[in-house]
Amino acid sequence: MITDNPLESLIKRLSRLPGLGPRSARRAALHLLKNKETSMLPLAEELDHVARTVKTCVECGNLDMTDKCRICRDSRRDATRICVVEDVADLWAMERAGIFSGVYHVLGGTLSALDGRGPKELGIERLAARATKSEVGEVILATSATVDGQTTAHYIGERLERSGLAITRLAHGVPVGGELNYLDDGTLTQAMKARRPL
Amino acid sequence: MITDNPLESLIKRLSRLPGLGPRSARRAALHLLKNKETSMLPLAEELDHVARTVKTCVECGNLDMTDKCRICRDSRRDATRICVVEDVADLWAMERAGIFSGVYHVLGGTLSALDGRGPKELGIERLAARATKSEVGEVILATSATVDGQTTAHYIGERLERSGLAITRLAHGVPVGGELNYLDDGTLTQAMKARRPL
Repeated sequence: MITDNPLESLIKRLSRLPGLGPRSARRAALHLLKNKETSMLPLAEELDHVARTVKTCVECGNLDMTDKCRICRDSRRDATRICVVEDVADLWAMERAGIFSGVYHVLGGTLSALDGRGPKELGIERLAARATKSEVGEVILATSATVDGQTTAHYIGERLERSGLAITRLAHGVPVGGELNYLDDGTLTQAMKARRPL
Repeated sequence: MITDNPLESLIKRLSRLPGLGPRSARRAALHLLKNKETSMLPLAEELDHVARTVKTCVECGNLDMTDKCRICRDSRRDATRICVVEDVADLWAMERAGIFSGVYHVLGGTLSALDGRGPKELGIERLAARATKSEVGEVILATSATVDGQTTAHYIGERLERSGLAITRLAHGVPVGGELNYLDDGTLTQAMKARRPL
C-alpha cells in the first residue's frame, strides 16, 4: 500500500475539499502529476499567491487583492443601495447575474445559536453604521430562504426599523424554468400570495 | 464582475481538475480562503513538493519518491509475476484491494491509433525485455475491459506468445454486489461462458 508518503498526504488533503472525495482526489492528483509543469506547479504557485494576497474588504467583507474591494472602490456603483448577503459566494452569484449595481455587505453566515454566531460575529452593527450614513436609501436583504437566513433577515430588519431606510428582501416565487408539480408548498404559497397582474 | 484577478484565475485552474466544474471550483476556492493557514498554504506547499519529488519508477512506471518504486524495491514481492495495468490509478486500485503480491508494469494508456499511441509509447518492448528474464513465469494482463484495453492486452499476448510464459488475464463476470437485471449483455455472456461448479 502507498502510505506515509507526500503523494498520499496530498491526496488526503485534496479529498477534504468540498465536492471531492477520496476517489476524485486521486484522479485529480494523477491528472496534476501528468501535467506537472503546466498544471501542478502553477496551481501550487497560484494557491500560495492568492493565500498571501487576498484580503477581506474592510467595507463590505468581499474578497479582493486590496483593502477595499473593487466594488466598493468603483464610483459607478450606486452606494445608496446595500445588498446584504450571507457569503462571498452569494455576492459572486449576484455579480454573475449582473442585476445589481449597488454595493454589498457580506455577513459571513447567518445568526445561529448552535454555531455561536450572534449579531456581533456577523458585524451587524458595522452594517447598521454603514446603512445609516446619509447617502444610503435602501437595504436589500438577500439572505437565503432558509430558516436561519430568514431569521437573520428578520433580525436585521428590526435593527434598522427606525432608521427610515427602505428595507426590502428578494421576492419568493416559482424559479424560472421550474415546474409547478416539483415545487414545495411553501414556495407555491408565496408565489400565489405575491401574484401580479399579467 | 470579478475577472482578471489571481482569485479568478485560481478558480479557473481548479475548475479544470477532473471531477470539478466552475461551481465546485468556486466552492473549493472559498473553502480554501476561509482556511488559509490550515488548508490553502499547506496544499500549495504539498503540490509544489510532490511535483518536484515524485518520479516515475524506471522499472515499472509507478509513481514514487525514488527512482525505483517501493514495490519494485520490496524483496518480499513475488518478482516471478508481472501484472500489466493501463495506469497508475489501476495499480493503486490493485494495491488497495491487496490481492496481488507480484510486481507491476504500468503501460501509461492503451494502444490507440487516434491518439497516436503505438507499442513504442507504451513501452511494450521494455515489458517484453522484463518479462523474458529468467525469473519471470507469468504475465497477468489487467487492462480495462474496454475495446482499447482488450486490443492492447491482445497485442501484448501475441508479442509474448513464443516466450513460454504463462499469459493470463483478469476474469470477466458479474461484479460482486451487482444485480443481474442491470448488467449488460456482454458481461452476462462472459459470466455464463465462464461459469464454474458451485
